[in-house]
Amino acid sequence: MSLLDELRIPRGPVDLSAYSPGGTPGLDMGKKRGKRRLDALGPALVKLQTKLFAQRAQPDGRRVLLVLQGMDTSGKGGVLKHTVGLVDPVGVRITSFKAPTDEERAHDFLWRIEKAVPARGYLGVFDRSHYEDVLIARVHSFAPPEEIERRYGAINDFEQRLVDEGTVIVKCMLHISPAEQMKRLLARLDDPAKHWKYNPGDVDERQQWAAYTEAYEVALERTNTEAAPWYVVPSDKKWYRNLAIAKLLHETLKSLDLGWPAADFDVAAERKRLAADTIGEREG
Amino acid sequence: MSLLDELRIPRGPVDLSAYSPGGTPGLDMGKKRGKRRLDALGPALVKLQTKLFAQRAQPDGRRVLLVLQGMDTSGKGGVLKHTVGLVDPVGVRITSFKAPTDEERAHDFLWRIEKAVPARGYLGVFDRSHYEDVLIARVHSFAPPEEIERRYGAINDFEQRLVDEGTVIVKCMLHISPAEQMKRLLARLDDPAKHWKYNPGDVDERQQWAAYTEAYEVALERTNTEAAPWYVVPSDKKWYRNLAIAKLLHETLKSLDLGWPAADFDVAAERKRLAADTIGEREG
Repeated sequence: MSLLDELRIPRGPVDLSAYSPGGTPGLDMGKKRGKRRLDALGPALVKLQTKLFAQRAQPDGRRVLLVLQGMDTSGKGGVLKHTVGLVDPVGVRITSFKAPTDEERAHDFLWRIEKAVPARGYLGVFDRSHYEDVLIARVHSFAPPEEIERRYGAINDFEQRLVDEGTVIVKCMLHISPAEQMKRLLARLDDPAKHWKYNPGDVDERQQWAAYTEAYEVALERTNTEAAPWYVVPSDKKWYRNLAIAKLLHETLKSLDLGWPAADFDVAAERKRLAADTIGEREG
Repeated sequence: MSLLDELRIPRGPVDLSAYSPGGTPGLDMGKKRGKRRLDALGPALVKLQTKLFAQRAQPDGRRVLLVLQGMDTSGKGGVLKHTVGLVDPVGVRITSFKAPTDEERAHDFLWRIEKAVPARGYLGVFDRSHYEDVLIARVHSFAPPEEIERRYGAINDFEQRLVDEGTVIVKCMLHISPAEQMKRLLARLDDPAKHWKYNPGDVDERQQWAAYTEAYEVALERTNTEAAPWYVVPSDKKWYRNLAIAKLLHETLKSLDLGWPAADFDVAAERKRLAADTIGEREG
């Protein structure tokens, strides 16, 4: 079974307690082997991504959008560094969504998202996303219930449009346990080189763990579409999280069955032109 | 001597024929050792870049801008992949400048450049840059001589302002020989997996080698300022080019003498707050 099949959640109601944050589904190995597997996956991933990038000038060129969602400390930054960091940065567009600016708030919640979707040939990565607008917005009642309700449908329509345009969307929920979050928050406090990552607000958010869990369950259920399904990635083990997402990307790129674009010029004629060229001799 | 000192060109008239494109100044070694040195530099580069990124919320946080200029096939893409690819992509913003759009053309040439300069904490990378507006624009007379003339001064004022704002600018000219360019163009023709990189227009541009060389010499002379000096990077040897630019970045980041930002919260109080927290036990 592919890891895409293994981690894709079934349609219908979602109960996150049914997914173990410390599990390693589909990748039965230890940390050491897991890290080696990730390194070993690098070259194949680069090759497939380069094929994607090579299509950026093709009218039917594809796009890939990786959406990373998860509680604070679940490892969105780690995935950017260790997994997304494997590929050629020229073809990657990372957008880290923060609290919306005044200008963004004056528009529909999808306005800033639309501006960040990947162009043809690109791997776009969302570090947080439009899902914040049905997660934190729901937990903190930043919007009335009927507006939150409207957003699930708006998200599905929006994602369907991206898919119809040739984008593949890989939506990953990085699933951690509250005990693991505690460990990671304490580790940030213990190391002065990590203080910049520590935000006292994260501890306030942590108090709403149950409300966030419920908000995730509803959001996952409502937006787990055929066009853009959700993957729940157990993330208490960092090596598993990084490797699993690398494999999801790899399987996704492979499924596109990309070839190298055909030359839109006459190869033999170009070779002849270059052979006749004496610039090298005059000045080389 | 640092590599920054080694490759920084002296003020005054520039004669590119005085710089050997096949040389390895400051890094006297072979390809194998050069590649190992580049890999070995990775972790130190990541650490320094993370310190830069950690400052993104500090009012006095720094910015770094790497400018890559060079003839077609000189290896701007290779530097992105092999050198820029070493660091954490979350803190990198790459902009590949193409022929300006109608909207860009309706503005001053620096308008689109301003929009792409790195924010605090970021490493910005320009794959081509505002220098195209005094290089290709000069060679092809896309602008009258007095406008080209104006631009050198405008560039110096613009870069001075970036530096005054806290940006360090590292301007690299990737210096290749016409013979090496020929080799690389033929290699792109010979391999169907590289056809997408081949552009017949590159061969037309190649015919203007002497005019480009002169345009570079003038541009380098006129914009080789104290605030933003030029580095000429011999680029016939790919391993040297990748390693040299990694070292220029490393030395630049080191010279900023960055520390970790101090905590803007009470570490002991936060630890106490977390210790009192029972979310982990209730649900973990």
